[in-house]
Amino acid sequence: MTKIETVIADVKAKIATVTYMPGTRLPSVRATAKRYGFSPSTVVEAYERLQTDGIISSRPGAGFYVSDVTAPLSLADMGPNLDRAVDPLWVSRQSLETSSDALKPGCGWLPPDWLYAEGMRRGLRSVAKADVKVISEYAMPLGLLALRQLLTRRMSGLGIEAEPSQVILTESGTQSIDLIFRFLLTPGDTVVVDDPCYFNFHALLRAHRVKVVGVPYTPDGPNVTAFATILDEHKPRLYITNAAIHNPTGATLSPATAYRVLQLAQAAGLYIIEDDIFADFESTPAPRLAALDGLSQVFYIGSFSKTLSASLRCGYIAAPSEWVESLLDLKIATGFGGGQLAAAVVLSALTDSGYRKHMSAIHTRLANARAQTIPRLAKLGIEPWLLPQAGMFLWCKLPDNNSAATLANRCLSQGVVLAPGNTFSQSQSAESYIRFNVAQANDARIFEVLAQALA
Amino acid sequence: MTKIETVIADVKAKIATVTYMPGTRLPSVRATAKRYGFSPSTVVEAYERLQTDGIISSRPGAGFYVSDVTAPLSLADMGPNLDRAVDPLWVSRQSLETSSDALKPGCGWLPPDWLYAEGMRRGLRSVAKADVKVISEYAMPLGLLALRQLLTRRMSGLGIEAEPSQVILTESGTQSIDLIFRFLLTPGDTVVVDDPCYFNFHALLRAHRVKVVGVPYTPDGPNVTAFATILDEHKPRLYITNAAIHNPTGATLSPATAYRVLQLAQAAGLYIIEDDIFADFESTPAPRLAALDGLSQVFYIGSFSKTLSASLRCGYIAAPSEWVESLLDLKIATGFGGGQLAAAVVLSALTDSGYRKHMSAIHTRLANARAQTIPRLAKLGIEPWLLPQAGMFLWCKLPDNNSAATLANRCLSQGVVLAPGNTFSQSQSAESYIRFNVAQANDARIFEVLAQALA
Repeated sequence: MTKIETVIADVKAKIATVTYMPGTRLPSVRATAKRYGFSPSTVVEAYERLQTDGIISSRPGAGFYVSDVTAPLSLADMGPNLDRAVDPLWVSRQSLETSSDALKPGCGWLPPDWLYAEGMRRGLRSVAKADVKVISEYAMPLGLLALRQLLTRRMSGLGIEAEPSQVILTESGTQSIDLIFRFLLTPGDTVVVDDPCYFNFHALLRAHRVKVVGVPYTPDGPNVTAFATILDEHKPRLYITNAAIHNPTGATLSPATAYRVLQLAQAAGLYIIEDDIFADFESTPAPRLAALDGLSQVFYIGSFSKTLSASLRCGYIAAPSEWVESLLDLKIATGFGGGQLAAAVVLSALTDSGYRKHMSAIHTRLANARAQTIPRLAKLGIEPWLLPQAGMFLWCKLPDNNSAATLANRCLSQGVVLAPGNTFSQSQSAESYIRFNVAQANDARIFEVLAQALA
Repeated sequence: MTKIETVIADVKAKIATVTYMPGTRLPSVRATAKRYGFSPSTVVEAYERLQTDGIISSRPGAGFYVSDVTAPLSLADMGPNLDRAVDPLWVSRQSLETSSDALKPGCGWLPPDWLYAEGMRRGLRSVAKADVKVISEYAMPLGLLALRQLLTRRMSGLGIEAEPSQVILTESGTQSIDLIFRFLLTPGDTVVVDDPCYFNFHALLRAHRVKVVGVPYTPDGPNVTAFATILDEHKPRLYITNAAIHNPTGATLSPATAYRVLQLAQAAGLYIIEDDIFADFESTPAPRLAALDGLSQVFYIGSFSKTLSASLRCGYIAAPSEWVESLLDLKIATGFGGGQLAAAVVLSALTDSGYRKHMSAIHTRLANARAQTIPRLAKLGIEPWLLPQAGMFLWCKLPDNNSAATLANRCLSQGVVLAPGNTFSQSQSAESYIRFNVAQANDARIFEVLAQALA
């Protein structure tokens, strides 16, 4: 990147993250040149190019201003990192775009033949025979009652008390989060994420033009001291985290940390989204923030993409009662009613006597995959940060501080998709980490490609 | 509404529509009191209540300011009209929430037994036997290729030239529009809508916190003179309209109007969303803006909810090539990959030899329903604004300037859901209009209830 490009990228990033608001004056050429240690002519050239692109405009004698009419939102341009290799969307795009025969230890889901296809096929056949209303009509705004009732019974098993009238069906876990973001956040708000956290939280938060602060994640949950300082200094509006099995680390929230986090959140009036899409992978349930809080400041969300099928889109939100009506208005405005069909198939598959047996087999299969993968990685000097109790992820340190972004690009050219650490890290402090999916690691070629790429 | 409530509602509406930006100073108590012709103490009381709710804050000696931290987005509070009877979401909520046995001449879709349930059942059975990847995996980011190819062939029949790589599958027509709004719009931008237009455009635009300007709709399309003036005065970013059969009027865009609108839009750099969800109801195709424009500034969207099934969620966007990659990033960030299953069922049903025959039968059935409904309405003094060539809607004037909002509330208490005119009208100039769905008007009780309510 040239000096001019550096200035351009920095200004674009500050506009994208609303550090520079539309209509505000940019720092003077002189001040900017001094800050970078570049010559003023470099800064002038950068500002002129930004002006040509319509991103900033000049007012004679009064300096440069951020244009009011911005270019269409481009997530790739947003945020500080313009290198696609460590862009939060890189892993998603590579995982989704490469053929399903490619090797994808970087992806975030199980191989298709690990999912509950038999239950899905039975569900589809059963729905094909259902009443014409199920086949053809919009659902009620909350979504299929029988599925919402089932979900409250499942939540109750985790200590979360919710009425079916507090449960809103959505198209996916991601859409659940997006809907709550839209509801609670205004551009410029601050949101706390775990560092590291699921990379798509970063991508989605960028789309909402909010400020993001990362709290370091420990094997017991977020670092509570750092969390308290962040609430104090940044007055965030929202904290988003995983329940149960943390993505990408595989760590589990301890009861003491859960209690302390909730206490701090309640004192600060902070809302929390607890994303529990990996719930069914747990053998021993960890504490849920939503259970302690009684769905007062915590929004609890989930989906069926990781256990039942990613091809059928269905997720849910369990929300504080007083927000349900407004969330429904927003759901209708942004996606209209939603259907009954996906919910009916999910209901059929979840209540199928085979589902529990299927998940029990998956637990065993994942435990075996972890046991096989850890020594294979160890031979390459790749070590897990912790040994997870459940789930598909290992959060691993590369040997010799290797760059995971470089490694990921090398492996991609050999047909292996990795998940480089900095896509998960707000502080960009996970450059030599990768997230490794043990369910996608059965092929010996993965380890050959890794060995060559590390050499 | 008391005087105090009037001031509160007005301030809230101005904040919601970003007329008052966060952080800006409100007009003084004295000026506001003068403007309304109320006493200053009324305004003080209103401001104090707004302060208690955290919506505004006072700075000693410096007046009242719009709070930076706003309450969670509530669409019901947004915009000028706080009366739920003429809220843009009122018709959606009533139509979706009342039981499917209620009488709903106000709703925007066909009765379930008019849709293509047989094709759907066949599609579901066929997908139940499909490869495990179709059943279980995420789709590629653009969505199922075979369906995108089919869609480009269908578009080609309307003169719209698009490559399959320009077609993005989504969860619904509404989600298609929302995705483009998110991509193109920034809070405070101006958007042009038809007056009247589909009420959910209003709801969705409120959620995006943009300014909305209505262009009067004529039987040939938008009033071109007014359109030119709006582009000149308001510099809007986007115009959203229906292709083919206009909702709610049933009017059809004339070639001359289409040409002129596009010429003005191109000169002004205005983007257009052309919503063509009623395409398959047309007998003789009207001109498409997307065809004239060659998908350069026009985004063309559609779905299958109105002809195939509302229960299966699947829509699409045909976009200018240069925006496809960024739209995909946004689609993944906000909803992740999307599935293959809904697309596979749609593909099966659309390529089923029975679909064309089914739609041809629907055309005849709708023509008969129009012919039967018009005289039944005429007996009550309710007259259509024009006689549509196709589709399910009649845009009707009530006798004696009756208020449609009042009528709708009266009819709702008798189990009949109407669509009052002002939910469609940005200028609120359709107080004595209703949109009437002839496919939902078979029951004589509807006309009895209407007669009583008008009396």
